[in-house]
Amino acid sequence: MIIVLKPGAPSETVDELLASIADKGLKPLHLPGAERVVLGALGDERVLAQLQLESHPMIESVKPVLAPYKLVGRELHPQDSIVSIGPLAIGGGEFAVIAGPCSVETPEQMLASGRAAKEAGAGALRAGAFKPRTSPYEFRGHGAEGLRILRSVGDELGLPVVTEVMDAADVELVAESADALQIGARNMQNYTLLSAVGRIRKPVLLKRGMSARLDELLLAAEYLLAGGNDQVILVERGIRTFETATRNTLDLNAIPYIKQRSHLPVLVDPSHGTGVRDLVIPMALAAAACGADGLLVEVHVNPAVALSDGPQSLYPDQFAELMRRLRPVAEAVGRSVA
Amino acid sequence: MIIVLKPGAPSETVDELLASIADKGLKPLHLPGAERVVLGALGDERVLAQLQLESHPMIESVKPVLAPYKLVGRELHPQDSIVSIGPLAIGGGEFAVIAGPCSVETPEQMLASGRAAKEAGAGALRAGAFKPRTSPYEFRGHGAEGLRILRSVGDELGLPVVTEVMDAADVELVAESADALQIGARNMQNYTLLSAVGRIRKPVLLKRGMSARLDELLLAAEYLLAGGNDQVILVERGIRTFETATRNTLDLNAIPYIKQRSHLPVLVDPSHGTGVRDLVIPMALAAAACGADGLLVEVHVNPAVALSDGPQSLYPDQFAELMRRLRPVAEAVGRSVA
Amino acid sequence: MIIVLKPGAPSETVDELLASIADKGLKPLHLPGAERVVLGALGDERVLAQLQLESHPMIESVKPVLAPYKLVGRELHPQDSIVSIGPLAIGGGEFAVIAGPCSVETPEQMLASGRAAKEAGAGALRAGAFKPRTSPYEFRGHGAEGLRILRSVGDELGLPVVTEVMDAADVELVAESADALQIGARNMQNYTLLSAVGRIRKPVLLKRGMSARLDELLLAAEYLLAGGNDQVILVERGIRTFETATRNTLDLNAIPYIKQRSHLPVLVDPSHGTGVRDLVIPMALAAAACGADGLLVEVHVNPAVALSDGPQSLYPDQFAELMRRLRPVAEAVGRSVA
Amino acid sequence: MIIVLKPGAPSETVDELLASIADKGLKPLHLPGAERVVLGALGDERVLAQLQLESHPMIESVKPVLAPYKLVGRELHPQDSIVSIGPLAIGGGEFAVIAGPCSVETPEQMLASGRAAKEAGAGALRAGAFKPRTSPYEFRGHGAEGLRILRSVGDELGLPVVTEVMDAADVELVAESADALQIGARNMQNYTLLSAVGRIRKPVLLKRGMSARLDELLLAAEYLLAGGNDQVILVERGIRTFETATRNTLDLNAIPYIKQRSHLPVLVDPSHGTGVRDLVIPMALAAAACGADGLLVEVHVNPAVALSDGPQSLYPDQFAELMRRLRPVAEAVGRSVA
Repeated sequence: MIIVLKPGAPSETVDELLASIADKGLKPLHLPGAERVVLGALGDERVLAQLQLESHPMIESVKPVLAPYKLVGRELHPQDSIVSIGPLAIGGGEFAVIAGPCSVETPEQMLASGRAAKEAGAGALRAGAFKPRTSPYEFRGHGAEGLRILRSVGDELGLPVVTEVMDAADVELVAESADALQIGARNMQNYTLLSAVGRIRKPVLLKRGMSARLDELLLAAEYLLAGGNDQVILVERGIRTFETATRNTLDLNAIPYIKQRSHLPVLVDPSHGTGVRDLVIPMALAAAACGADGLLVEVHVNPAVALSDGPQSLYPDQFAELMRRLRPVAEAVGRSVA
Repeated sequence: MIIVLKPGAPSETVDELLASIADKGLKPLHLPGAERVVLGALGDERVLAQLQLESHPMIESVKPVLAPYKLVGRELHPQDSIVSIGPLAIGGGEFAVIAGPCSVETPEQMLASGRAAKEAGAGALRAGAFKPRTSPYEFRGHGAEGLRILRSVGDELGLPVVTEVMDAADVELVAESADALQIGARNMQNYTLLSAVGRIRKPVLLKRGMSARLDELLLAAEYLLAGGNDQVILVERGIRTFETATRNTLDLNAIPYIKQRSHLPVLVDPSHGTGVRDLVIPMALAAAACGADGLLVEVHVNPAVALSDGPQSLYPDQFAELMRRLRPVAEAVGRSVA
Repeated sequence: MIIVLKPGAPSETVDELLASIADKGLKPLHLPGAERVVLGALGDERVLAQLQLESHPMIESVKPVLAPYKLVGRELHPQDSIVSIGPLAIGGGEFAVIAGPCSVETPEQMLASGRAAKEAGAGALRAGAFKPRTSPYEFRGHGAEGLRILRSVGDELGLPVVTEVMDAADVELVAESADALQIGARNMQNYTLLSAVGRIRKPVLLKRGMSARLDELLLAAEYLLAGGNDQVILVERGIRTFETATRNTLDLNAIPYIKQRSHLPVLVDPSHGTGVRDLVIPMALAAAACGADGLLVEVHVNPAVALSDGPQSLYPDQFAELMRRLRPVAEAVGRSVA
Repeated sequence: MIIVLKPGAPSETVDELLASIADKGLKPLHLPGAERVVLGALGDERVLAQLQLESHPMIESVKPVLAPYKLVGRELHPQDSIVSIGPLAIGGGEFAVIAGPCSVETPEQMLASGRAAKEAGAGALRAGAFKPRTSPYEFRGHGAEGLRILRSVGDELGLPVVTEVMDAADVELVAESADALQIGARNMQNYTLLSAVGRIRKPVLLKRGMSARLDELLLAAEYLLAGGNDQVILVERGIRTFETATRNTLDLNAIPYIKQRSHLPVLVDPSHGTGVRDLVIPMALAAAACGADGLLVEVHVNPAVALSDGPQSLYPDQFAELMRRLRPVAEAVGRSVA
């Protein structure tokens, strides 16, 4: 329920109303705005009828939240959210670029790849220590040792780091090492993991599942916010279709669709989104043009020998070219590259 | 690697070969057959070259395992596996029917639904205590209390019970209550859960993910077998396509495709597979005709008031009709209904 | 609009009502039943209000046709339609099998393949003279010469023949040679071709488009019936999904969905539907079990040298095996193989 | 086959070689370049062996054309093609915008919509006189009368006009009225229509089928070029996926994929591509950013009363906004808006 107060409603009224909402077993929300205060009440809205809010002298209007994603939607939270990963602010006027290799392989590979990312202008570093793999016989990442390497390279380069967490039991471990956690596409509806990550207070990148409808992505994010973690960044990373020319079909339609309905920032991952190195730069430019808040890009110092995702990783000079071509497009839509 | 011994190879040779495979760091497999013994060696096959198996006097032939799913495939394990859930054998000459409501709601609902399933001829009972739900605000099951109700109804009716586990931390709890565990479609690639379930010694029903290719389902099963649990039953439960007439597109092509490549039993879930009550019976008959080893069907004593999946649950008399019409079709393909 | 007359309504009343419906510019339909007569009125239903049918003494009830496919649906035509291709009745108690090679290649290949089909029990012969091909450089069929060969082989074997028409300009030519015309998947929404075929009075097999929803298939059939041709047989032949294990995903859910909504007969094409020879027999059995009225199957005397679709064509002995295994399944659902 | 001549090869050698290619029954192509002449030979390449081209003194190298789309690909035709619709050049440095209502409804609607398109900067006018419709009972366009209205409005506004042709029998009629013909998504594999349009010498817009893979679109275009019409413009207009938030999934990955493989210009239709008015502007900007050569956009003077596609048509002021926001993005990737 959205409760709009009249201009000049005193703060005691606000407190009384929040208390009576909580009294009825609903979750109260306080949303002060420039001109008037808005309150929210989440839960079984029928019990609110007993409060007879419509006839309250300081209440201007009462209306239901229509979207199924109450906290993620713009109805209760119209203005854009900005989520910060260290010094990198995502969701505001700057266009953020998070780059790095698919996996942490060795300290040398990680440092060289991270340095290439930083020199070209990346604002944060990404790499996987825990890797979800279709076959049990493939390289599954270096785990805790990989986290240590990533952290140390991030510190050396002065870049915040982002990495995937696959297991609820690892959430604390990963949260200690990384500046932001990533929930991968295969785990978008792993509700155990969503609940565990909802309990921490670190930024989360939530990737869209391979066959998730957009409303399902927004509801998965709702799990995180309902759990208490509102530092959520959504990531479009391609969906599964009949097309075989690309590994996935990067669905940029998702960007304006989500931005119109949700206050959360949205990144685009053109590396997984296409699975084809030659398509990464043009799709990155398109992402900036249609309103994404940034990119998640795979860069490897030598993709030809990468342990995973080599065919979609950019070479350092390609990443530098991406950054160079990105700046004028971001400016054309009113943003600067962070 | 598949190592076929000559007829009459002595058991000492078998033991020696298994030991030298293990010595090289590979996993040895002993596969005695009616006419000759076959050995398997899983891992980096290049080190086997050092053993010069081709020139061993008791070895007839050595060939690589071509499929990426080594343990799940028929190359190392040509004959059908039979997995037993209590007295119900799945994968042999009998066609197994596991039925019950989507969720455990109350002891009364569970008992009445279970009784209807049993009277019509079901061989095991299914119901969810932990429910994966797209929205955090929907009914998510009664958890441990639901497990107790399900177990008690199963005992009262003399039926083994199957229920879903969503969280690696719950695997032991669920394994104590249930005769078989189910891994749901959303968790088919939750590798943490697959590893945890791979460590127990109870039957597992592994459902195909909504957008999983068949080879990905077989590789997910490979995680379970590689973890040591070979009591695995695959379940086709519909894939996500462009078609909106049905909730999912039940993909029966999966049945012969899997049966030709894997020794594991395969069930069909026509309830989730179509999401439409009126399609459940015809698709159940089709499943039997194309070689499935059984069904997983939703039956509720009163679908109109079900807390979840009402529109796809059969009424008790419809389930009885299904069983009646199923028997002649199963017999037409050489099976009897368990 | 569906107009149900009272029992005993005299034929003069029927004639008067049909005339006044036509007078208003709507298409009148006369649907005599066992107990009472039903009339239909197709077109802008608002003008019917002027007739005040509700107050007519001989009219029991008036209700709208809800489905968008008026003539194809069961509302105005509840009983199953039977469409005959020569002596082969499709849609009644018999299960029909139409078989033959993908393309007419030579008189010898056609005769040998047709003979194999006939000996195993096929009720009609199929083969393509005009072939739709993705590339302009592939074999596109022998055209008119192919039609002559097909007709002559059909006559020699005493089997009716079915062949595809791709071009509105060829409809008459094909209709002269063949006992039934086929509209291929790529042309399901070729409205020029649908209109041309709607004007002839020969049976038509209408194949579902590769990405057509079921309601779109029914609406494509509505073009044929609205054009005056009610000898329409629908064919499920697989849809395009993300799955790459099969060439297409044969969607058997279509069969009960369509049979519940339409009076038209439905065939299944497991050859194109899967694109994989080894899946043809099990999926053919499944088609019979879920209520299809028959099959369209590719059989070639020597698939290894076929000019098109070799990998999905059955060898003659495989087709004989299909027929042998089909009979008990068809009987299990109350049908005999024609 | 691609035959590269040595620098300075005399024109007599060129003529002789072309003649001997034709002599062997292959199609000769003459592709003069800045530095050296390239010849092509299309057809059964084995017969070329008889010419012993490798040993010809004036031939530098001979290599096969690898792509299945010989004329559409860049192997034989590396430089971009520019196709002109009246004064509007598509495929060069200018970004082209073709706009107008879905259907020609009345002279007034057409003129007002066209005027709005022109004033905001559109370079050509589009509208349908022949409309493909899923149901036979929907508005199917005004046909020849619609063509006359469109032509007259185009002449009055001084804009070239583009319109769809659905029937091979109408190709000449449409070609007389319009400056460019469009082949719709449903007809992308209507080979009769492709052949008929391949015989005329007017620009053609070929839209991607709803479930066509990109290589199938390129092969459909190959039909047109093989037929002799090389004025072909490809159009990405959305594919059918599981996503229901949008009517179609506009697949911008297609743009760089096609541009890297084919010399033909490519437009994007964000109106059909998304089916949602609010997504048209952001996706149009993304199209420009990733390398499209222009747009096909639906603009209607009053979408609320449009006879077709109202929900995806822009209002005139929205189209003006699109053009305003498009210019800086086009410039950011080095193009100007035509």
